[in-house]
Amino acid sequence: MLVEEGRRRVQIEGISPQIDGGRFPIKRTLGEEVRIEVDIFADGHDVVAGAILYRPEASPEWSEVQLSPLVNDRWQGSFTVSQLGRYIYTIIGWIDHFQSWRRGIAKKIEAGQEVSVDVLIGAQFVEEASQRATGEDSSQLKTWAATLRSVQKEDATTLEQKILSEDLVTLMTKYPDRKFATTYEKPLGIVVDREKARFSTWYELFPRSCGEPGKHGTFKDAQARLPYIADLGFDVLYLPPIHPIGTTFRKGKNNTTTAEPDDVGVPWGIGSPEGGHKAIHPQLGTMADFQEFVAKAGEYGIEIALDLAYQCSPDHPYVKEHPQWFLHRPDGTIQYAENPPKKYQDIYPINFETEDWQNLWEELKSVVLFWIDKGVKIFRVDNPHTKAFPFWEWMIGEVKQDYPHVLFLAEAFTRPKLMYRLAKVGFTQSYTYFTWHNTKWQLTTYFEELTSYPACEIFRPNVWPNTPDILHEFLQHGGRPAFMLRFVLAATLGANYGIYGPAYEVCENRPFKPGSEEYLDSEKYQIREWDLNSPYTIKHLIKRVNQIRRAHPALQSNKLLKFHPTNNEQIICYSKQTEDFSDVIVVVVNLDPYNTQSAWVSLALHSMGINPYQSYQVHDLLTDAQYTWGEHNYVELNPHIMPAHVFRVNANR
Amino acid sequence: MLVEEGRRRVQIEGISPQIDGGRFPIKRTLGEEVRIEVDIFADGHDVVAGAILYRPEASPEWSEVQLSPLVNDRWQGSFTVSQLGRYIYTIIGWIDHFQSWRRGIAKKIEAGQEVSVDVLIGAQFVEEASQRATGEDSSQLKTWAATLRSVQKEDATTLEQKILSEDLVTLMTKYPDRKFATTYEKPLGIVVDREKARFSTWYELFPRSCGEPGKHGTFKDAQARLPYIADLGFDVLYLPPIHPIGTTFRKGKNNTTTAEPDDVGVPWGIGSPEGGHKAIHPQLGTMADFQEFVAKAGEYGIEIALDLAYQCSPDHPYVKEHPQWFLHRPDGTIQYAENPPKKYQDIYPINFETEDWQNLWEELKSVVLFWIDKGVKIFRVDNPHTKAFPFWEWMIGEVKQDYPHVLFLAEAFTRPKLMYRLAKVGFTQSYTYFTWHNTKWQLTTYFEELTSYPACEIFRPNVWPNTPDILHEFLQHGGRPAFMLRFVLAATLGANYGIYGPAYEVCENRPFKPGSEEYLDSEKYQIREWDLNSPYTIKHLIKRVNQIRRAHPALQSNKLLKFHPTNNEQIICYSKQTEDFSDVIVVVVNLDPYNTQSAWVSLALHSMGINPYQSYQVHDLLTDAQYTWGEHNYVELNPHIMPAHVFRVNANR
Repeated sequence: MLVEEGRRRVQIEGISPQIDGGRFPIKRTLGEEVRIEVDIFADGHDVVAGAILYRPEASPEWSEVQLSPLVNDRWQGSFTVSQLGRYIYTIIGWIDHFQSWRRGIAKKIEAGQEVSVDVLIGAQFVEEASQRATGEDSSQLKTWAATLRSVQKEDATTLEQKILSEDLVTLMTKYPDRKFATTYEKPLGIVVDREKARFSTWYELFPRSCGEPGKHGTFKDAQARLPYIADLGFDVLYLPPIHPIGTTFRKGKNNTTTAEPDDVGVPWGIGSPEGGHKAIHPQLGTMADFQEFVAKAGEYGIEIALDLAYQCSPDHPYVKEHPQWFLHRPDGTIQYAENPPKKYQDIYPINFETEDWQNLWEELKSVVLFWIDKGVKIFRVDNPHTKAFPFWEWMIGEVKQDYPHVLFLAEAFTRPKLMYRLAKVGFTQSYTYFTWHNTKWQLTTYFEELTSYPACEIFRPNVWPNTPDILHEFLQHGGRPAFMLRFVLAATLGANYGIYGPAYEVCENRPFKPGSEEYLDSEKYQIREWDLNSPYTIKHLIKRVNQIRRAHPALQSNKLLKFHPTNNEQIICYSKQTEDFSDVIVVVVNLDPYNTQSAWVSLALHSMGINPYQSYQVHDLLTDAQYTWGEHNYVELNPHIMPAHVFRVNANR
Repeated sequence: MLVEEGRRRVQIEGISPQIDGGRFPIKRTLGEEVRIEVDIFADGHDVVAGAILYRPEASPEWSEVQLSPLVNDRWQGSFTVSQLGRYIYTIIGWIDHFQSWRRGIAKKIEAGQEVSVDVLIGAQFVEEASQRATGEDSSQLKTWAATLRSVQKEDATTLEQKILSEDLVTLMTKYPDRKFATTYEKPLGIVVDREKARFSTWYELFPRSCGEPGKHGTFKDAQARLPYIADLGFDVLYLPPIHPIGTTFRKGKNNTTTAEPDDVGVPWGIGSPEGGHKAIHPQLGTMADFQEFVAKAGEYGIEIALDLAYQCSPDHPYVKEHPQWFLHRPDGTIQYAENPPKKYQDIYPINFETEDWQNLWEELKSVVLFWIDKGVKIFRVDNPHTKAFPFWEWMIGEVKQDYPHVLFLAEAFTRPKLMYRLAKVGFTQSYTYFTWHNTKWQLTTYFEELTSYPACEIFRPNVWPNTPDILHEFLQHGGRPAFMLRFVLAATLGANYGIYGPAYEVCENRPFKPGSEEYLDSEKYQIREWDLNSPYTIKHLIKRVNQIRRAHPALQSNKLLKFHPTNNEQIICYSKQTEDFSDVIVVVVNLDPYNTQSAWVSLALHSMGINPYQSYQVHDLLTDAQYTWGEHNYVELNPHIMPAHVFRVNANR
């Protein structure tokens, strides 16, 4: 074993946060804090010191922040990220001989021991520091060195004044001797995104359902829907694929295997002679229409998120141009998607084991760059867990190097390890299991997991109560109250959440068949007309909650989510707050869409910065009601009126 | 970002055991199992497979063991280490296209689908495998491929027979297609020691106290003590430093700062004109005497452990020969050890920040090699936490590369992070906090920590109830029962344990002064005469317990230590067992040395492989008493008779 420098006595270990031994970066948004803990120690009894070194990856200059000791050789420090893109950070630790000396000589003075040789040792440390310093600091240190050298046998008070000055410590701390400093072996990464990665409000819409009754809707029609969507308070409008739809094996209404001539097809069956992933479905309009739509949405504060579904209809140009990207069967046909015994003959999956994988990767990346060029900044990625992980890590890394503001949402409803791995390899946000979690126990354990280390460092949940693929039985049977309560849960548990509308706000709850999670007359296969002014609409609740989200920073992050005990399994209670306690929101939801439920909720007031010996006011931002609360509080919620409280807490702290 | 091979679709993460992201090796002894768990998965729905690759570091050939799936994408496998020295292991994972195909075609057959093209795909996989295989296997696979190609539209039963044969699976599993296999990025290490690293019984002895009354004892005198030590059942005899003792600032009896002319000095004050760390204190004998002593001990099954104390008396030859290895003060003197305001002028610590660190390291290593050459295989290292960690990692690594049977015990009584780090950088065994842990809560939490992951993978406790530096107040005041119960705890909680004798067995309990942990008339400073036949001796208990330890493999490892609840804070109960339940020991100790205590102990029978619905026999190996027990059992222990039960469990399983 070769040791290049054996005098690095400081040991550094146990850095947190750190994902898989530094293999993957953590995530932050602009202006967020990175709080680091680490074990730092050395042999013997010398004083040690440590600092965080951090910098944007592209910058040659390290910034530095001093670490403070906690207990048990654990140290802590933090810094704020202020630039989009990749950062790296590491830890440096060193022996502080000056501080060791100072601690020792202080004890000797206290014990009345003779220190004339000791002061010379100190003088030497100060002298050396003066050589590391420049300008005024250097002169001051030289003066200090001279002072120390002049110390004689004096009384303890004089000695302390001369030797133990805090001014000298301050000055010396600026010029540590790091000759033998240890730097942690592996630089650790951070991906810094813009704020929307942390706080976003999504609405999924089929533009083709926005037209005149009986007609195929266009971008222009969808444009007319923008004021409605903006009024509800959404800031991301996600469109299912907008590309030409194939006709071979096209599915008909309600997923029938033979389409009628007037069937519009599934938007995820991408590709026709009119083009593939870089083209626009002619019935939606032109590229110019799309770009106008994106621009118009921007005026309403809405970003357009495109669907990135890397798969092809049999009519996709890739099939002819790059047949090597697909798996060929011995009979010469191309392998369609299947989950035996089910067949999806309208879809050709891409074969990521193709020999031509490098060209494939480049082409798939070029799709993203193409739409970035057209003004798209957000991609909702369809089934990323069925495409190779190494591809995502490479592609997202490459794209974000040049376009660090671009966000990728992973639409993976799969096993936990894969969900987290997608987040690790680069996805900005992720769909969750929320859609299937309806009980207090499920919601509590799941969101506690998501907001705890290490998940909280990599996985940003985007919480959806429905999608075009998932109409949960809870919504099928719970009526309008179910839609209301699931909405409040999604919008307050998740700083990022979304709904598939207008199906959601008009409380569409008819399944394809009993026991199925598919919608009847699903928009995946046909155009639907929605009555936006239906008497069942919950749009007023949606608008109100989105207003509350915008006004309350506590709801714009999941970092300080805390569940509080209640004595009723149907009543869930949780709080969110800002780090400085300036904004505290308490949410209480009746999970039973049928019956009025009541409970005592017991708030962990200390964790919310509230004096438990005083009463305080809670203001229901949904109903404007106000209550005087303490530690244990009675709540009663009639789901047919309003299944939730969203309280702002007004407390004297 | 450059990607060299993008088709490695399998992801590998969460390997356990793994220390600090693979920075440090885990530890095993010969014949022990390494059980590994790991997450393995890939995109999509293909079947994946994985294996552990492992080998002695020096061997070019990997051995391989297949992993089996647990749940949640977690896999498990194990292997046994059979060679001393360093091993490395890693994980390989790949997509098993044949198994994916087989799963799919089975479902298609079941659904009555046409599979004539699918069988050709399978035939191709089999054909490819035949090319990877050789000899008979290759021919058989070729035949299988032909069979698959000949499959026509046949009925399901015929198809299943032809296609889904287990024989074909077995054959195919031998020749997987690993073209795009993923190997975990970092090879992980194992240090394999001989059995004594896991199971050893130590006795510390000052040879100079073994002589005739009033005379300085020698190796020859110590040799005469070997039958006694062997009879008590010890297999490691650890000697304080045997090197020449300095005279400058030599300490007198009871740590007085001025020594009388006849004071023998502190063995840790190493070095005089007669030599340093490679010399023998003349009053103990010659090198030949030492080597004879080592050989004689070997005949009794006892290994001699030397004390490795890297520090010097002012008279050590290093001080003149290598003054650059010490810190010099501005007045020209060498810096002695101090812990202000305390001064230890008889000791010069080595300065590990010396410019000449490379020569220093080589010389310190040569000390170890010198004594290995003289037959020493175990080193008890004095205060390793006051010497640089990089030195230990290098030195122990270097020595064990050539002498993998050599063991190092870290005598560090310091902060937890440093204790564990010493174990990580290479120490075979470690002293513990046991000496200060006397309550049930302390013992339980501490030993649960030591026997849990990750500590159990790196830190082998060596449990001492006393040392020449530590006479705990519990022993000072608890009388003979305190010595007995602390002994049983040490010898049954720790597969490795030791006592400092004869002080321990004769129950020496006089402190230097009230509140001090130092012995009165400590052997560190003077020769002591011990009455080995004192009426207070607990040597018979020691002998019996050591016999039990030798006869019972359950007590030769800490791996399956389990604490069981009792309803009395003064009664502790725990069990140890072999993995196959063939040997189960239950220990019950009264922690109160003054009073008879009784309790109900509740055994977790399931974890001990005992049917909880049947009674079973427990046989007290200390007293030969037998009891019929169930799940909850009454015990009563009079500490003045016998403060502990050590039960062998005889159960029908």
